[in-house]
Amino acid sequence: MSRGIPFVLSGPSGCGKDTVITRVRQKMPELGFSVSCITRPKRGSDKEDGKYRFLSVGEFENMLAQDAFLEHNVFLGNYYGTPRRPVEEALAKGRDILIEIDVNGAAQLRETLPEAVGIFILPPSLAKLRKRLEERATDSPEQIAKRLHEARREIECAPLYDYVIVNDDLDTAVEDVCSVIRAAHLRSSHNKSTVNEVLKNA
Amino acid sequence: MSRGIPFVLSGPSGCGKDTVITRVRQKMPELGFSVSCITRPKRGSDKEDGKYRFLSVGEFENMLAQDAFLEHNVFLGNYYGTPRRPVEEALAKGRDILIEIDVNGAAQLRETLPEAVGIFILPPSLAKLRKRLEERATDSPEQIAKRLHEARREIECAPLYDYVIVNDDLDTAVEDVCSVIRAAHLRSSHNKSTVNEVLKNA
Repeated sequence: MSRGIPFVLSGPSGCGKDTVITRVRQKMPELGFSVSCITRPKRGSDKEDGKYRFLSVGEFENMLAQDAFLEHNVFLGNYYGTPRRPVEEALAKGRDILIEIDVNGAAQLRETLPEAVGIFILPPSLAKLRKRLEERATDSPEQIAKRLHEARREIECAPLYDYVIVNDDLDTAVEDVCSVIRAAHLRSSHNKSTVNEVLKNA
Repeated sequence: MSRGIPFVLSGPSGCGKDTVITRVRQKMPELGFSVSCITRPKRGSDKEDGKYRFLSVGEFENMLAQDAFLEHNVFLGNYYGTPRRPVEEALAKGRDILIEIDVNGAAQLRETLPEAVGIFILPPSLAKLRKRLEERATDSPEQIAKRLHEARREIECAPLYDYVIVNDDLDTAVEDVCSVIRAAHLRSSHNKSTVNEVLKNA
């Protein structure tokens, strides 16, 4: 059995990456998903989606002391981190795992998980991203301006990822992610044992 | 419009690559296909499939003198070559092109067409390859032994390709090739202008 592959997925707020991920996971139910540890208080929308594991600051710092994170960060006084063990266990079992993370976390993962395949989800344009954020109507004009500023900074990191996928049409973007995952398994660097097996059974 | 991508596809005789290619071309009618120039005499099966352009030795050597081939070879006294112009024209028009070629030709193309994505089609095992060649019943036992020897030599080159695809189930192999082609277009190295476009339209 060959090792699973970690996929690191980023994209600016409003690019639709959560919807893309939900659809990809529906199409590929065997794909694992990394649950981030965070210390910020729960919001109303957090409970259902299982994206986060909520820890106390003490619990988080204990894990930090044990080197239990593949990457971590502090943002607005709260810790965020990708726990190492669930990722390593999935990969060892031959299961792929999707890690949704911001560009700073992805930069750390490039060091700690160098075999990870990076995917960056792009909005069709910054103008369309602005429109989506305005339509979402959850942010003030100041917050939208801040998000757009942040989006530009993140999109400038897109060339550091292996793949960039424009989320203009959702179905296309979902198929794109699935193709990247499928193709990653076919790389010859991932199939050295396959070639040897074929040669062995003469 | 972004440039097309060349895909170089190899695999030992009997691995089913012709059937895979036919099916991929049906699913992706926009995919170009490189027609090889050869100087060997036509066989009965050659006429229909349009895989080859038959040239006289003089014509071939004229083209050679004009550097009109991306790669060429001499095999059993006959010339074989991949003409440069159709490939370059397709790529310039944004059209992908599939180049089916043996491992020696592929090695030359790695020099002359470094952006090419290499795909190697593997049989499930050498034992199954032998069975397929025997069932095909077009070769003598000596020819089969020679083909298997050659297959082993070719399969040993598989790690030089970007992707290896096992043709055990035909539908799976066809989907695999299509995923590789789709994913190749999403590589960030192929999308520098896409990222810049997104940033421009603020």
